[in-house]
Amino acid sequence: MGLVADITDLGTRIALGERRALARGITLIESARADHRLQAARLLEGLPKDREALRIGLSGTPGVGKSTFIESFGMMLADRGLRIAVLAVDPSSARSGGSILGDKTRMDRLSRHKNAFIRPSPSQTHLGGVARRTREAVALCEAAGFDIVLIETVGVGQSETVVAQMADLFLLLLAPAGGDELQGVKRGIMEMADLILVNKADGDLKAAATRTCADYAGALRLLRKRPQDPDGFPKAMMVSAVETTGLETAWETMQTLVDWRRDAGHWVRRRIEQSQYWFAEDVRAGLLSQLDAPRARNEMLRLGAQVADGDLAPSIAADQMLRWLSAVKR
Amino acid sequence: MGLVADITDLGTRIALGERRALARGITLIESARADHRLQAARLLEGLPKDREALRIGLSGTPGVGKSTFIESFGMMLADRGLRIAVLAVDPSSARSGGSILGDKTRMDRLSRHKNAFIRPSPSQTHLGGVARRTREAVALCEAAGFDIVLIETVGVGQSETVVAQMADLFLLLLAPAGGDELQGVKRGIMEMADLILVNKADGDLKAAATRTCADYAGALRLLRKRPQDPDGFPKAMMVSAVETTGLETAWETMQTLVDWRRDAGHWVRRRIEQSQYWFAEDVRAGLLSQLDAPRARNEMLRLGAQVADGDLAPSIAADQMLRWLSAVKR
Repeated sequence: MGLVADITDLGTRIALGERRALARGITLIESARADHRLQAARLLEGLPKDREALRIGLSGTPGVGKSTFIESFGMMLADRGLRIAVLAVDPSSARSGGSILGDKTRMDRLSRHKNAFIRPSPSQTHLGGVARRTREAVALCEAAGFDIVLIETVGVGQSETVVAQMADLFLLLLAPAGGDELQGVKRGIMEMADLILVNKADGDLKAAATRTCADYAGALRLLRKRPQDPDGFPKAMMVSAVETTGLETAWETMQTLVDWRRDAGHWVRRRIEQSQYWFAEDVRAGLLSQLDAPRARNEMLRLGAQVADGDLAPSIAADQMLRWLSAVKR
Repeated sequence: MGLVADITDLGTRIALGERRALARGITLIESARADHRLQAARLLEGLPKDREALRIGLSGTPGVGKSTFIESFGMMLADRGLRIAVLAVDPSSARSGGSILGDKTRMDRLSRHKNAFIRPSPSQTHLGGVARRTREAVALCEAAGFDIVLIETVGVGQSETVVAQMADLFLLLLAPAGGDELQGVKRGIMEMADLILVNKADGDLKAAATRTCADYAGALRLLRKRPQDPDGFPKAMMVSAVETTGLETAWETMQTLVDWRRDAGHWVRRRIEQSQYWFAEDVRAGLLSQLDAPRARNEMLRLGAQVADGDLAPSIAADQMLRWLSAVKR
């Protein structure tokens, strides 16, 4: 990709809601090239600041029916005239060779809907890089006037935390469990969830879904109450993406929660906290990115081998590495 | 504290096992002063490399009887002629004003035993700083010929991970639980433990201890088997620090585990992995330490306020901060 000819014009066309301009803008912010980064910064600075989408984070392991859920849930919203953008955070996509949203045919109808915009995860190995680019893509989608930005993740490593830290609402999608075990959902993820949706509440799995939903409702009640929750939240509910049941109730529940948080001041406060979190994270990531340069990697390997052999204490090797890094910079 | 007059002499005296020299050496490595750091590096480089203590990490929340356990367990080992050093990792001590081992009277007999050496946690706010200094103190204790170095922590924040990453064995000390709940032990901590010791298995609490021990034994069986464990490990056992029961069996169990790991090559492999982990961690901590300088903190606050007001996007503020940092360096 070359440089954008007219960055102001691109920003104007994004603000007008042109999807090709939006797609081009996202490609620009996904680039790691220094000149692209400069253009991306100018693009972001010039965006209208008065638009605000509802940012929904969605996590669920492979097999819970995430694509089908997004298709059904997204179609319901799009048919009501709401404009919905779908983005993905998948730090594993570079390795696995295919991103979770790469196969757009899995969301065939939604991807062709005039009110929907679907963008696969960029191929990046670093979660830090993915996080930054996804936040910037969210900003572009908001500027393009989308009402809802849905950010999905498969929950590899820290990706759920990353998504929760950029969302107004965090949904956890689960499948009915076989036995009486809670599907090994990490406690930290449960604590981030605003709404747990047990999918596949249809056909043979309906009974299992009912039991799983009750189990999670019980588990949620054991968690400490968070200030940002009204009574009865976080909630566990059943949906069937295939039969499109429960989706309307889920959407109404989300709106109830969002309205309460807006009125109570939590919405604004959370956005400010998230901004400051990402500012500090970006600074830290920027400082650590010095270690990604090929020469720095080699030096780390060289010193690391001496540490492994016992020839160099870890702290002394680290001091040598830090001196090497500041010498390179000058 | 002034500079050490003769750093080679200090190293020699530490290697001879002189406790006053060891205490002086630890004070030196705990200092953040640049000239002290240089002397500390020279001291560490000159230490004998052929001595190896068994490093035992011990975690337990306040109230489980940690001091009493260390006193009883340490006395048993010291009376057998084993030399034991006790160090503490407590990132909260700077705030709370008192370190966990600060009150040596709680380990009155052990602190006066000729085979024991007890050192309170340094007063540092940063866990990174505490971690580095504790590892260096461990190295000094090993060079001084101690057979066992016990590193204790109260488990604030990430301190258990820090201790587990510098120990050959990781023990989790628990108190009998009241009801049928597993005392809210974080899953990650369970997964690090080699041995869970349920303390206070005496008097009125004995029945509760038995039940708690069985609960944890069951929970441990549900965890994925780790390559570094022989059959039957990790284990849960009962002890009474007050009645000094179960301590010999616990010590024999630790030795069985250690022998197995040595024979299977896990001991050496783990030490190498730990060294490489700390090398990389120290490099990262060194890069991030630029943010601790008072002027850098002020700049972060200034830009952070603009981010909070919505005047500056987080990523753009971060770029400005990174430019500020590299300008300051030149």
